[in-house]
Amino acid sequence: MLLKILELVGIVAFAASGALVGVSKRFDIFGVCVVGVFTGIGGGIVRDVLLGIHPPTSLTSWPLFGTAVGTSVIVFFLHSTLGRVRREILALDALGMGLFASTGAVIALDADAGVLASVLIGATAAIGGGILRDVLVNEVPLLLHRDLYAIPALLGAALVVAGTSAGLTGNTSLVIGTVVASGLRLLALWRHWSLPGPRLSRE
Amino acid sequence: MLLKILELVGIVAFAASGALVGVSKRFDIFGVCVVGVFTGIGGGIVRDVLLGIHPPTSLTSWPLFGTAVGTSVIVFFLHSTLGRVRREILALDALGMGLFASTGAVIALDADAGVLASVLIGATAAIGGGILRDVLVNEVPLLLHRDLYAIPALLGAALVVAGTSAGLTGNTSLVIGTVVASGLRLLALWRHWSLPGPRLSRE
Amino acid sequence: MLLKILELVGIVAFAASGALVGVSKRFDIFGVCVVGVFTGIGGGIVRDVLLGIHPPTSLTSWPLFGTAVGTSVIVFFLHSTLGRVRREILALDALGMGLFASTGAVIALDADAGVLASVLIGATAAIGGGILRDVLVNEVPLLLHRDLYAIPALLGAALVVAGTSAGLTGNTSLVIGTVVASGLRLLALWRHWSLPGPRLSRE
Repeated sequence: MLLKILELVGIVAFAASGALVGVSKRFDIFGVCVVGVFTGIGGGIVRDVLLGIHPPTSLTSWPLFGTAVGTSVIVFFLHSTLGRVRREILALDALGMGLFASTGAVIALDADAGVLASVLIGATAAIGGGILRDVLVNEVPLLLHRDLYAIPALLGAALVVAGTSAGLTGNTSLVIGTVVASGLRLLALWRHWSLPGPRLSRE
Repeated sequence: MLLKILELVGIVAFAASGALVGVSKRFDIFGVCVVGVFTGIGGGIVRDVLLGIHPPTSLTSWPLFGTAVGTSVIVFFLHSTLGRVRREILALDALGMGLFASTGAVIALDADAGVLASVLIGATAAIGGGILRDVLVNEVPLLLHRDLYAIPALLGAALVVAGTSAGLTGNTSLVIGTVVASGLRLLALWRHWSLPGPRLSRE
Repeated sequence: MLLKILELVGIVAFAASGALVGVSKRFDIFGVCVVGVFTGIGGGIVRDVLLGIHPPTSLTSWPLFGTAVGTSVIVFFLHSTLGRVRREILALDALGMGLFASTGAVIALDADAGVLASVLIGATAAIGGGILRDVLVNEVPLLLHRDLYAIPALLGAALVVAGTSAGLTGNTSLVIGTVVASGLRLLALWRHWSLPGPRLSRE
């Protein structure tokens, strides 16, 4: 139950980030909704395709799909206001990333995917929506050349898998994974942490 | 039977649109065929992956795959002529979109995908090929910032699902869905209809 | 056994090509690893999704995934040296392409995919990683407008399927398919072969 609620919050955050990108590209309302919905539920669809869950849950569930659409529509009509809350969006995006990493890992474990695959599929669910968003609007995924993003996702998913192996309940693992993944991402954004690029490695 | 024939017509239309884009980018004959084939059968492959139909029908059926290849080759060699029939291509593309939306919804219903998923997967089959085409050639999908495209696709798929629930035969639903989806798209092209963009919403 | 070793060599080659592209784009170490890993195991993941193998083998196997990560890390730290060995990378890429085409066709046959689908899925495994790499870094896939690439992949996969139908052992087919596919690609690179473009067809 907690899981479902948190999953919806993650979809809201991701859909809002996608819709805002669509607005900034001056798409019409449908283009904004397409980018918002892809970003909101794309990671979950990729996760389900990799796990063999057919059809993907996000396509069969009115609450999940409706949340992504509704968020995109609201962002489209409120965008002049939302333009000033980009920082809040980044925070929500970080929360969504942590939630998708953790819930993705739990869902993968439930589908008997094994330790390695559960970590990787959790991380894929967390980063998949953002990659789809950036490929759709024809930009190099932020993931590839910006501050820490995928490492917190991998770490969150790995903590969930480790916690479950160690006998923690699903909910406890979920909370730990989400807090660590989202917290690390927020910390990285706040402190402008990033990994060394090719330039630095030559010094 | 009618369904199969109409599906082939849809593949011809989509493959031709993809091959023409490849020609306009000055790809060699193989590049043109790759874009044409991806566009012609890509939507059906995505549909089958989402439904768990393995391997996707378009990859196991000589008529479907051969039609996509043959169309691309013909477009490559006739392109100087086809350059003048771009309007006819847009019309064929609209027909293909309607057919893929309707047939996709029927196939999804047959695979017990449920109401919501059948509508969404039908629409995905209708728009998937075009998205693949535009991402491959590194352009923002037309779907995202042009006249009505995905709404007719959603409407066509929804009519098929509603018609089937209401007791219509598969063929009747199919025809209604195709005519409405393709007709609305053609009307939008002809009258230059489009949805409001972010600019308008601020007025 | 031979198959597994050769598959690892293919992953090394593809991951190295992806990581080098990431280095040339000045990504940080994680961006380089993401592109390297996607390129190294992406083709195999697409192959497994099309065949309904859940979760994809590359996500469940430490040796496969670890090889892709390790290769990317090594390329990141050695890139100033590797910049001079681009020709060797192209050769390794050609070897990897042939191996993925052949092994992909064998895996598809083992999954009862049928003749046509086995050829197409083998070729998809061979070209999929490169397409993912180029779409991720926002460039038109090389496949689409350069020298012979997909034809050797299709030919290699077709030879494996034909050889198996003709009663050859899996290993023999595999070797023939790999040698022909990789050899043809290397020959095309060496002799600068390419297919006619739209320009030539008008003469």
